[in-house]
Amino acid sequence: MVHADSSNFASGISKEGAYKHVLEQAEALFQGQTNWVCNLANTSSLLWHAFHSLPSPSSDVNWAGFYTIDPKKANQLILGPFHGKVACETIAFSRGVCGAAARDGSTKLVQNVRAFPGHIACDGASMSEIVVPIIVDGEVKAIIDVDCAVKSGFDEVDQLWLEKLAALLAESCEW
Amino acid sequence: MVHADSSNFASGISKEGAYKHVLEQAEALFQGQTNWVCNLANTSSLLWHAFHSLPSPSSDVNWAGFYTIDPKKANQLILGPFHGKVACETIAFSRGVCGAAARDGSTKLVQNVRAFPGHIACDGASMSEIVVPIIVDGEVKAIIDVDCAVKSGFDEVDQLWLEKLAALLAESCEW
Repeated sequence: MVHADSSNFASGISKEGAYKHVLEQAEALFQGQTNWVCNLANTSSLLWHAFHSLPSPSSDVNWAGFYTIDPKKANQLILGPFHGKVACETIAFSRGVCGAAARDGSTKLVQNVRAFPGHIACDGASMSEIVVPIIVDGEVKAIIDVDCAVKSGFDEVDQLWLEKLAALLAESCEW
Repeated sequence: MVHADSSNFASGISKEGAYKHVLEQAEALFQGQTNWVCNLANTSSLLWHAFHSLPSPSSDVNWAGFYTIDPKKANQLILGPFHGKVACETIAFSRGVCGAAARDGSTKLVQNVRAFPGHIACDGASMSEIVVPIIVDGEVKAIIDVDCAVKSGFDEVDQLWLEKLAALLAESCEW
């Protein structure tokens, strides 16, 4: 199997099935590879293709990727690998959904970003968002961020599986 | 203007026009930001959306992104930010089109990858490829890699503008 085939999902796959495929492929790709840039880059591809293999609202995902802790500024996130349109380079911990997840180290599942205090519109098309922190030894190292162009794009299934993915990334990468 | 608007290209834009937009947007995004992960991530988005705003063969681009020098192994490239399907994590300097460009520090414009000695098929769908090294003080730091699902996907216009982009990235990032 060539690498690109990891991004191919079975037709009619369920959301659980698609996430299971992402986790299995990610685990295989991370064997013997701990470079975080490399691993997050491939994971953003897996997530993007997973969402776009599913029906709406998952297929309405318009951004899937990562922010890491900015090595140059405390309490600030900096853009990592992603799939989607151009994004904000940095996000202060004090701002938006990403900042909130990085600040308190817990998942944020937001059904309507316009109702979220301090929401940052990197893309005016984004309507809902899920942000899951990647935590190593109690410290947030990065966040998984996925945006959707419709309201209520994510549910507890997304949360469950993205938290599993965050745990895998936490243990698989040198941060 | 929100960040995502950088990825929107005028309808009916020419290839030169699309590349000019990429360069202008990249230059603006890099103002005050030298983090290479962040800058390559946004650049891969700009390139992806530029190609997909153009007619075929540019719209047949199936991978646009970067490899950098692997900090853990001499004469090896490691995957950086990209848009497209899952890709090979590492590429030895001795292998394929990417390896050749990294080894001798010059652009490789390959109209038919299957005829290129030692071609690595990360994706069997890729038929042509352009690889442009990013060189700082005579040393290759990374490569821009773009694959196309049809033969002869790139020409001297792509080469000219991707070399301009490589020069901008060379001077804009801390490597």
